Amino acid sequence: MQKNVEAVAPSVSTPIPGPISKKLKEKMEPHHQAPSVRFFVDYEKSFGNYLVDADGNTLLDVYMQISSLSLGAVSRPALGSFPPTFYPDAITNALSSVAPRGCPGVQTMLCGTSSNENAIKAAFIWYQYNKRGKKPPTDKDLKSCMKQELPGTPNLTVLSFQGAFHGRSLAALSLTRSKSIHKVDIPAFNWPVANFPRYKYPLAKNIQYNERQDDECLAMVEKLIIDHKKAERDVAALIVEPIQAEGGDHHGSPAFFQGLRNITGKHGVVFIVDEVQTGGGGTGSFWAHELWNLIDPPDLVVFAKKFMTCGYFYAEHLSCKEPYRIYNTWMGEPTKVVLLEKAIEIIRRDNLLEQVRIVGKALYNGLLQIENVNSSKMMNVRGLGTFCAFDLLSSKMRDEFLETAVANGLHIGGCGDAGVRLRPALIFGEKHLEIALDVINKSMKKL
Amino acid sequence: MQKNVEAVAPSVSTPIPGPISKKLKEKMEPHHQAPSVRFFVDYEKSFGNYLVDADGNTLLDVYMQISSLSLGAVSRPALGSFPPTFYPDAITNALSSVAPRGCPGVQTMLCGTSSNENAIKAAFIWYQYNKRGKKPPTDKDLKSCMKQELPGTPNLTVLSFQGAFHGRSLAALSLTRSKSIHKVDIPAFNWPVANFPRYKYPLAKNIQYNERQDDECLAMVEKLIIDHKKAERDVAALIVEPIQAEGGDHHGSPAFFQGLRNITGKHGVVFIVDEVQTGGGGTGSFWAHELWNLIDPPDLVVFAKKFMTCGYFYAEHLSCKEPYRIYNTWMGEPTKVVLLEKAIEIIRRDNLLEQVRIVGKALYNGLLQIENVNSSKMMNVRGLGTFCAFDLLSSKMRDEFLETAVANGLHIGGCGDAGVRLRPALIFGEKHLEIALDVINKSMKKL
Repeated sequence: MQKNVEAVAPSVSTPIPGPISKKLKEKMEPHHQAPSVRFFVDYEKSFGNYLVDADGNTLLDVYMQISSLSLGAVSRPALGSFPPTFYPDAITNALSSVAPRGCPGVQTMLCGTSSNENAIKAAFIWYQYNKRGKKPPTDKDLKSCMKQELPGTPNLTVLSFQGAFHGRSLAALSLTRSKSIHKVDIPAFNWPVANFPRYKYPLAKNIQYNERQDDECLAMVEKLIIDHKKAERDVAALIVEPIQAEGGDHHGSPAFFQGLRNITGKHGVVFIVDEVQTGGGGTGSFWAHELWNLIDPPDLVVFAKKFMTCGYFYAEHLSCKEPYRIYNTWMGEPTKVVLLEKAIEIIRRDNLLEQVRIVGKALYNGLLQIENVNSSKMMNVRGLGTFCAFDLLSSKMRDEFLETAVANGLHIGGCGDAGVRLRPALIFGEKHLEIALDVINKSMKKL
Repeated sequence: MQKNVEAVAPSVSTPIPGPISKKLKEKMEPHHQAPSVRFFVDYEKSFGNYLVDADGNTLLDVYMQISSLSLGAVSRPALGSFPPTFYPDAITNALSSVAPRGCPGVQTMLCGTSSNENAIKAAFIWYQYNKRGKKPPTDKDLKSCMKQELPGTPNLTVLSFQGAFHGRSLAALSLTRSKSIHKVDIPAFNWPVANFPRYKYPLAKNIQYNERQDDECLAMVEKLIIDHKKAERDVAALIVEPIQAEGGDHHGSPAFFQGLRNITGKHGVVFIVDEVQTGGGGTGSFWAHELWNLIDPPDLVVFAKKFMTCGYFYAEHLSCKEPYRIYNTWMGEPTKVVLLEKAIEIIRRDNLLEQVRIVGKALYNGLLQIENVNSSKMMNVRGLGTFCAFDLLSSKMRDEFLETAVANGLHIGGCGDAGVRLRPALIFGEKHLEIALDVINKSMKKL
């Protein structure tokens, strides 16, 4: 078919889905769940009111990606049902190539918040499936859920942490416990929250105190899980960030996260790691949770931001076999997956994770030096890779610092009550570091 | 600055935000709330680790759109804080030019679901603001919301309708009442639901019955609002689709929607019209709710799908003045707004809404003719513009019909239990109509 000329009539020469669509679906399924996929589309050949499928069938389209196109086949696909023919390869080349250990499958989404929303949905679906003895919903479940009553609408809960940030939709905001201005006036799910460690720095001088922090937080997590089970408000999932970024760059130790993995495993709670901010290389490894040396990997790992496309990686048992349960019209955007493929190529070609580790160490040491001469105002320098932060004495002082820094040419962010965070790109090098430290130093002196 | 060459050092010649950024913000605010905007960025000039703002200041960037860029300033902006310099014009040219009457402001988002989530957040914020006597949150509110307790975390509810579809995040899914497979196993907010009219067709022969449907549904809505207020679970917002599309293409009369507007106005409930599927011209008018001839316009109108960008239009009193309350990292994508601008140009140039009305009338009449000769299997032909639907005897028969149609070259959608929906593009013309009716006719004969 000639490009940019509309077909004059439909023509169908295979069943729909045809053999090529079926093969593409088989190719895709081990890497990205595809229960709602109807057929694959060749969007390069589709034009105007006509859509050309992977098998070369030309269809007059009066559905238009579920009512999403005003000017015909020139925009973007409803990925969950009609993905482009190149999508299975794009998924494998881009996302599967960086899948965290133990989570080989990926589900794309459009933003970090909807990725978290869908990750907890996947957890609920699995939890109830297990509770029913590995069976699909019963008629009673299907009927009662339309009235939002038990058993179809369960009283399940998700456990998160004080200081956490998981997004701002109502359910994500119920998990978010960082800043009151985000939460105030908005109804919330009554879900449990545990303390997250608050370490004293430098770590080497506060080992006992910090270990006690870990132990107390872990004990609280386990108690909440047990208590909620007794109250028939089971904790179906626990969600945690490797570093509570928005909440103030609070770190947890590998031992703390190993403890979380053990407790969730023991109680059948889905373990979700929210790597929306930490994923993608800023910590010096592609996934921050790689540094925990877990024996059992997480069940779900959420990504967004640096990945351009968003979504979650899942362990095999958390794949969803039934159509339209983990679904929406767009479910991500294929062009972003293609961009990610190129970005990963460059990250590998230029050995950027190694650069992040080297520059990150120099950044950390540089910040420590500045802290040493400003110790009455600046404290708690911490970081992994270039994912570094420090605290100032007060919110007011922090805000002043940010203003002075930007006036001196450094665009840098705040976090938590009085934190300052650096989130440079992976291409942040020695020469940029020198300038950044110089401005931070000058700005501290002016406070 | 030369393009695609990184700066060697920061250079700042104005305060930040500078005068141009400030002017751009003033220009934007009447059309798109902008309380979180820090400064505007010239992304054409930004490269690598450096960002160039609207005033020509060059900043070393260690924040990278809130940690969202791995390879530097080559990807997309965090719109809520650092929008591109062209964004205020793009908003005005694209979105403001099609703003529904009474809702001059627009808030962009990334998908339909997050648009609904943020629309109800805007409603909650306004409702509590009013309840406090038009005052911002108190210290007590800000403290209690971190524990998710009253008064900071209110027991507000949102009223939706049986058969509604508003998305699949947990809060949106609490409003969605169309299909059990979407809802089962997922916890929900305990929010009220009213009946939506279920008309008998043809409308002209069932006037009394249908008017009673309207009256009964409206009475139920008002009773739910009053009862929930008594129970201190105030209905802060009512959300409704002009046509319940996903749920089965159920229409409501102008009188029904006028009734909803009156009841919500009387009780201080925010009236949200979800035009995710109906907006953009398929019904023959740009907004389906224009056909209701409301005296008082809706408070919020949600859009997505055909608009490519998503979000909601708001009446002035629902604009949010405080930063970071209606916010997320991306808040939409500027390229989509530019695409929309072009699409609207073409819709106007080619007079496509008029075409939709003309072709829509012929489509409706054609479907009626097919119904007449297949009246034992096909019923309830209905539609506005080309936004048409009909029902078959059963789910099974409907699914068979869809398979036969696609095998004959027509890609058409199902909805509800036994509905078939047509959602063609606005460029669907007489010649396409002829083919579509021919395939529908043939497929009906084969059932």
